[in-house]
Amino acid sequence: MTQSSGSVTLVLGGARSGKSRYAESICRQTERALIYVATAEAHDDEMKARIAQHRADRAADGWQTIEEPRGLAAILKGETEPGRVLLVDCLTLWLTNHLLGDADIEAEIERLCAAVSASSADLVLVANEVGFGIVPENRLARAFRDHAGRLNQRIAAIADRVTLVVAGLPVQVKGS
Amino acid sequence: MTQSSGSVTLVLGGARSGKSRYAESICRQTERALIYVATAEAHDDEMKARIAQHRADRAADGWQTIEEPRGLAAILKGETEPGRVLLVDCLTLWLTNHLLGDADIEAEIERLCAAVSASSADLVLVANEVGFGIVPENRLARAFRDHAGRLNQRIAAIADRVTLVVAGLPVQVKGS
Amino acid sequence: MTQSSGSVTLVLGGARSGKSRYAESICRQTERALIYVATAEAHDDEMKARIAQHRADRAADGWQTIEEPRGLAAILKGETEPGRVLLVDCLTLWLTNHLLGDADIEAEIERLCAAVSASSADLVLVANEVGFGIVPENRLARAFRDHAGRLNQRIAAIADRVTLVVAGLPVQVKGS
Repeated sequence: MTQSSGSVTLVLGGARSGKSRYAESICRQTERALIYVATAEAHDDEMKARIAQHRADRAADGWQTIEEPRGLAAILKGETEPGRVLLVDCLTLWLTNHLLGDADIEAEIERLCAAVSASSADLVLVANEVGFGIVPENRLARAFRDHAGRLNQRIAAIADRVTLVVAGLPVQVKGS
Repeated sequence: MTQSSGSVTLVLGGARSGKSRYAESICRQTERALIYVATAEAHDDEMKARIAQHRADRAADGWQTIEEPRGLAAILKGETEPGRVLLVDCLTLWLTNHLLGDADIEAEIERLCAAVSASSADLVLVANEVGFGIVPENRLARAFRDHAGRLNQRIAAIADRVTLVVAGLPVQVKGS
Repeated sequence: MTQSSGSVTLVLGGARSGKSRYAESICRQTERALIYVATAEAHDDEMKARIAQHRADRAADGWQTIEEPRGLAAILKGETEPGRVLLVDCLTLWLTNHLLGDADIEAEIERLCAAVSASSADLVLVANEVGFGIVPENRLARAFRDHAGRLNQRIAAIADRVTLVVAGLPVQVKGS
């Protein structure tokens, strides 16, 4: 028996582009049970405080928060109940966490894409567009940029809708 | 008595994207009194010469030039005569000037947005889109990028029209 | 006797945006004789191997490959047979090669634009969009970014169609 899969929306944007807020706004339109998957890891007290504040804000809105810096595929696989909405913020931090953890990036991207395609929940995935600047002098930064670009392409190919957020405003790139 | 406010157009673009030229071209279409507000500060002789040349070019076109690196809000407030067209080039340099001057950036952005909303002149505001590259290693550059992104979002929210300029060509993001 | 000139398509994109693959896909739609002009220069063995592999892949598809790091104008002028399709990948590497070779960049861009305008072949030109990040600290990087932006504007102005590739997906900027 094949399970029908949910919709996939990719929200791309630059730094401070308003991509997260836009992603939240499209999730709120659904009026359904919302799960927020945060991939950020707190590396200092300031960030811990910000993460705790965001979690409290979302709880006040009735959202459930899952913090998962690396194991996105497992979480998406666990979401077998149709009609749920998952907002993942963001894929680029997930990628960074795997790079810092010395993971096999191509294998991780493969696993993530399979889980995204198979998920029966409606997914809203946030990612950074990082490739529109000059070539970074730092070798690691170049490798990161290459991986981030490939990840965005792979997810965009399986997404039903791709939106580029510019100064808080949506530009539809795929779907309507 | 409420004064009707003028239109607000935000022209966003990368470095050497042709955003200034595009902004000038839409101002010229109006055939009305044009005021060019330059926020650039000359830090060396080469730049002084370039600024003087640009000022002379615009004077030949019948434009009035105001050089104002920081006090944009005061200038916009002074523009109470409806039907005038002000081109501000550019908001990102204005932000840079305030950052170098150690100003309270959030307060300055607030003041600018209030003045933009209240202005009875038609405004064409140029700004740089700087958030589509990788995270800068320099802490100050990261702070600048965050402020610039937030400024663009704030202005875009109150603008009637937002245009992203790519290789000299306009992509409409808001309005038509 | 004036020779009718072919169409010019500019495909812009960031790093790992899928711009080359998109450019190849539009060339394949034509079902005509395809010439691939590669501007990349191999600076090490790894790159030599990658270039050789790409050349072999394209030969298997019936494409002819020309490697030309700098002399694009001469190649375009030599293409006097209408109906041919040339894919140039990419203009930004061509610019880099000229910058490293200490050429008169403005003169080279002028020569290239004249050859693009006059070519009777259909041209698909790939270029990097590099101006959407923060100002580079490196002086050479800033000069490169300025040249690349101006080159893109010049080519976009004479192109019939300009496409921005985002995460592998086309956003039409000019033409349809």
